[in-house]
Amino acid sequence: MPSRADGAPSWLYLPELGAPGTEIELGADESHYVTRVCRMRDGERAQATDGRGAVATLTLLSTRGAARARVESSVRAAPARRGGLLCGAPEGGRADWMVEKLAELGLERLVLVDCARSAWPGSARQERLDRLAVAGLRQSRRAWKLSIEGPTPLARAIASLPPETGRWLASEGGPRGTPPPGAGSNVGAVGPAEGFDASEESRLLGEGFRPMALADGRLRCETAAVAWSAWWALGAS
Amino acid sequence: MPSRADGAPSWLYLPELGAPGTEIELGADESHYVTRVCRMRDGERAQATDGRGAVATLTLLSTRGAARARVESSVRAAPARRGGLLCGAPEGGRADWMVEKLAELGLERLVLVDCARSAWPGSARQERLDRLAVAGLRQSRRAWKLSIEGPTPLARAIASLPPETGRWLASEGGPRGTPPPGAGSNVGAVGPAEGFDASEESRLLGEGFRPMALADGRLRCETAAVAWSAWWALGAS
Repeated sequence: MPSRADGAPSWLYLPELGAPGTEIELGADESHYVTRVCRMRDGERAQATDGRGAVATLTLLSTRGAARARVESSVRAAPARRGGLLCGAPEGGRADWMVEKLAELGLERLVLVDCARSAWPGSARQERLDRLAVAGLRQSRRAWKLSIEGPTPLARAIASLPPETGRWLASEGGPRGTPPPGAGSNVGAVGPAEGFDASEESRLLGEGFRPMALADGRLRCETAAVAWSAWWALGAS
Repeated sequence: MPSRADGAPSWLYLPELGAPGTEIELGADESHYVTRVCRMRDGERAQATDGRGAVATLTLLSTRGAARARVESSVRAAPARRGGLLCGAPEGGRADWMVEKLAELGLERLVLVDCARSAWPGSARQERLDRLAVAGLRQSRRAWKLSIEGPTPLARAIASLPPETGRWLASEGGPRGTPPPGAGSNVGAVGPAEGFDASEESRLLGEGFRPMALADGRLRCETAAVAWSAWWALGAS
């Protein structure tokens, strides 16, 4: 690969990545990323993923205006670790960095859960969260993008889980020191800033969620979400 | 305690907390916190800590201007878990939420480490980080405040560690799945945004730091710092 001043190494997110030989026009975000962040020039090679396990090498054909590139080769990455989080709404803008961090840690699914004490703001927000998931994917050079679903009621979010999923409830009163999870799918539940109410908590326990304490004190919603995902990320591939 | 509309429950940080009977004038931050965040009135009771293990009950004497309070009773909290982080500088403003999260997770010490590839910005910043540590202490109602030290060179930071400290190096190439640490003191080392250089890494290994991977991909500096602290927070008290 030709040297590129001191730009970042490339890791493009192109959901419509085609087979080798395909020519693609990059959207505004990826064009900016290629030319401004990675400082690439025509003819240089870039790495790209479709966020669903394909990793390709591209040649940049043109970096003026909307950039264009050709797919040179493509491979399949190993399957992503299976893990998700059912998460109530944190305060204010605190979901932003939460999503970026969950994506960096390699979480598979984030389900935004509307709770008795607090609901997620309207859907305009989800587009922004999705962009932050892409930023996290680029940062960690992952081949799988964090999928953001919902907002959805808790009961429906629970019903969407396969029965064999390991289920964990982040709870200040739960046992400490739970060892990292084994292989297989694991899902955490984290209440909104105001917490799950008693009926939500008993529903979660009734559906097989095991309480676990993440620290020896209370954590904000978004801190618990990142701490749970950090615990999950320690587990076996 | 009289009911207080819907203000937050109080948890004041008063480093000069005296013995029962002492009357204290609250600084600007704590006066604002008591009147605006907790919405307390004269005569109400508040909880406070000196951040060094004392937890007191206060009566608010006056909430106009600089608030005044009297210490009614005081107890000692259990000793804090022993744990620290030697941490290089993250990009831009990313240290802010990092410090807030480390404080929420109950970390004891954060040592800002100047590295070959990147140094921390000037000391003006440290006052801001200290305020964020206080925000984290309030949020998690802790009796021990995160102590922020440095910036200091790596060699000096390592020399400040007691010999019996468990030593861990956050490293993408290290082994996965390290179980939560046992009781006793544990310290992590996290490189700056640009990473430790080869000589820093070999110094850390030579000084007994054991590599551990926190996830199956690369993490930003501040994400690794929070993920390591979340791992540490899982450990035995």
